[in-house]
Amino acid sequence: MLIIHASQLLTLTKQPQRGTHLGHLGIIPDGAVHIVDEHIAEVGTSSDLLAAHPHEPILDAGGRVVMPGFVDPHTHLLWAGDRAAEFEMRLQGKTYLEILQAGGGILSTVRATRAASVQALVDENRPRLQRALAHGTTTIEVKTGYGLETQAELRMLSAILQLDAELSIEILPTFLGAHAIPPEWRANPEGYTDHLCGEMLPAVASWWSEHASGRPLPFVDVFCETGAFTLAQSRRILEKAKSLGFPLKIHADEFDNLGGASLAAELGAVSADHLVATSKHDIEALAASDTVAIGLPCTPFGLAEAHYTPAQDILAADGLLALATDCNPGTAWCESMQFAIALGCRYMKLTPAQAIAAATVNAATAIGRADVLGSLSAGKQADLLILNVSDYRHLGYRFGTNLVETVIKKGVVCA
Amino acid sequence: MLIIHASQLLTLTKQPQRGTHLGHLGIIPDGAVHIVDEHIAEVGTSSDLLAAHPHEPILDAGGRVVMPGFVDPHTHLLWAGDRAAEFEMRLQGKTYLEILQAGGGILSTVRATRAASVQALVDENRPRLQRALAHGTTTIEVKTGYGLETQAELRMLSAILQLDAELSIEILPTFLGAHAIPPEWRANPEGYTDHLCGEMLPAVASWWSEHASGRPLPFVDVFCETGAFTLAQSRRILEKAKSLGFPLKIHADEFDNLGGASLAAELGAVSADHLVATSKHDIEALAASDTVAIGLPCTPFGLAEAHYTPAQDILAADGLLALATDCNPGTAWCESMQFAIALGCRYMKLTPAQAIAAATVNAATAIGRADVLGSLSAGKQADLLILNVSDYRHLGYRFGTNLVETVIKKGVVCA
Repeated sequence: MLIIHASQLLTLTKQPQRGTHLGHLGIIPDGAVHIVDEHIAEVGTSSDLLAAHPHEPILDAGGRVVMPGFVDPHTHLLWAGDRAAEFEMRLQGKTYLEILQAGGGILSTVRATRAASVQALVDENRPRLQRALAHGTTTIEVKTGYGLETQAELRMLSAILQLDAELSIEILPTFLGAHAIPPEWRANPEGYTDHLCGEMLPAVASWWSEHASGRPLPFVDVFCETGAFTLAQSRRILEKAKSLGFPLKIHADEFDNLGGASLAAELGAVSADHLVATSKHDIEALAASDTVAIGLPCTPFGLAEAHYTPAQDILAADGLLALATDCNPGTAWCESMQFAIALGCRYMKLTPAQAIAAATVNAATAIGRADVLGSLSAGKQADLLILNVSDYRHLGYRFGTNLVETVIKKGVVCA
Repeated sequence: MLIIHASQLLTLTKQPQRGTHLGHLGIIPDGAVHIVDEHIAEVGTSSDLLAAHPHEPILDAGGRVVMPGFVDPHTHLLWAGDRAAEFEMRLQGKTYLEILQAGGGILSTVRATRAASVQALVDENRPRLQRALAHGTTTIEVKTGYGLETQAELRMLSAILQLDAELSIEILPTFLGAHAIPPEWRANPEGYTDHLCGEMLPAVASWWSEHASGRPLPFVDVFCETGAFTLAQSRRILEKAKSLGFPLKIHADEFDNLGGASLAAELGAVSADHLVATSKHDIEALAASDTVAIGLPCTPFGLAEAHYTPAQDILAADGLLALATDCNPGTAWCESMQFAIALGCRYMKLTPAQAIAAATVNAATAIGRADVLGSLSAGKQADLLILNVSDYRHLGYRFGTNLVETVIKKGVVCA
């Protein structure tokens, strides 16, 4: 298949997009892409590719932007139940404690998710993944972490594998048993940390080798934050995971600066995520490493908070920056990377070009897949979007609607 | 047609929704609506209406919210060209003056709109109106104001009438010749005010009587703001418009408090819009009148500004509050009332119920059409939405995507 006449073909082939180099879109005007099966065979101008392949079926993107599919590298998209009532209580001025007493907060999602079968999880979450795909996300990271006990966490992994097999969108799973201290361990966080290291992580590794048909191990992630896991507990969990061969991620500095970003850099994590209260020292440690800093602007937006990831400081330090939705039922139910871009422009002061690079090639780096995803050149996976606009800057400029007209995943038009 | 099995049928029949009474949704669980031709014949429970009308064709909304179509009472949705380049310049730190010197700002839209034919305006704006409809807006106010000379303004009115006739979405036009001082009058704003009162308003009234097939006159609106029209100029224009029989609207206090809200109340305007820098005195004057206060949260969001309409103060004073998108090419290209609701909840501290009432029944009041729009009861126009959620609070709670599954306008499924 030939996609032709893109007003702007965004190739994003310059890598890494680190520091002030973020935002090189590699635009080919009147661009074209030759797709063979699941992969890109060639990228160039429409006239060159039409001359070289005169008999290929044609998809005319006339006057529209063509770009790589979005990669969403941080979501909690798999859950049961919802928290609309809690959202309303917050707006009515109810305190965190009153919401907890009314049965709200993350543990209400844990209760609902623990009670759900694999099939119920699959059915409840399918529309969210379809919505993400329709908004241009062709690859998505999805975390566990609402089970917080071995069997419930394994059911979440099982649902993720089933949804990945069923749907066009590609899912990379993350084990987040360290999302919160579960209620039955509330008085003994150290005990739960021991349990995670001694029982749950080995159980996940073993289950994975039996059920995941040779796929690489999922990421292991920890919520390193006041009220969740301390820096020392986070280190124990991540070091254990690393020793078992898991690639690593971390939630760091969403509210307090505990040092999680430096830990991520030291351990070679693929990403450190949130990074709102991050210190200058931690930003420098991160920037000196290959760990990607992931900004999650939907979360402060969802909570109407004023503080966002200090993207300009990360770029000034020569860091790698990506964007993600953080889609979750408590603070940010949003499946659209386009909206994360609109927020990134306004509240992290990214240009549209920088935000697009952060949502594609750098987001692919943040899940360890930049070798095949997030850019358009020969050999890359044919994951592409056609936008119903002629200029890429409409991403960011416009908000609240969906500018994606056509989604192509592994060479197949799927939305 | 019978729509049945709405999990929640939001009727919004309590009127007026003033002050602390804002947010009465009038919910019927397992609700049903009987539609005959363009109107609602009856509203009730599914069992009652199924028993009363056993042979009607059925639309099963099983488990979904059914509610009135959104009314968007303030947009500048008709324009030519775009300002994506200007958005990027602002993010790169360019000043207002640098943007003006590079040909940006409102006058760039005026140049492009003056150069466009009626047909070009129709073709360029059709997709925006279709997008608004797909996001649940069944009635929309659209302003002129990018012509700023008689013939160009009349071409905008002509395009609005043509689009209203062509599309399912219903359009109420507003003449906003007083949107900005046009370049050829820059040195003489008083002269342009004279021209507006002496030439343009009579020309619009005369053109309307010849071309609008007996429709009521459009609204007349003024941008009362530092750098646009003074309070005295605004008064002259609005008083002249009133004497010609036009219903009135005003842009007041977006940046500076000039007294426009009190002027609107004094002259009996249907609405006063923006209201960010509004004084306590002006809020009280507004609340003591029947003029609706319209909050436009997409605008400060689009500009990443911190100040929003003080909705709680307006409600505490017993005022009438509505929401609108302000969709425009400079500060807020957003066609989705759902997103205005999400912002209203977060930045104006409205509950989802209050924001929904502000976006339906009160928005209908803000265009003088609450007699037939914005609520669901016998005799009202059959403008309804089916949302793909079971609880109305998902509006507000979720953001960046479209929760509207089916749009019904005048009894016809149209999106």
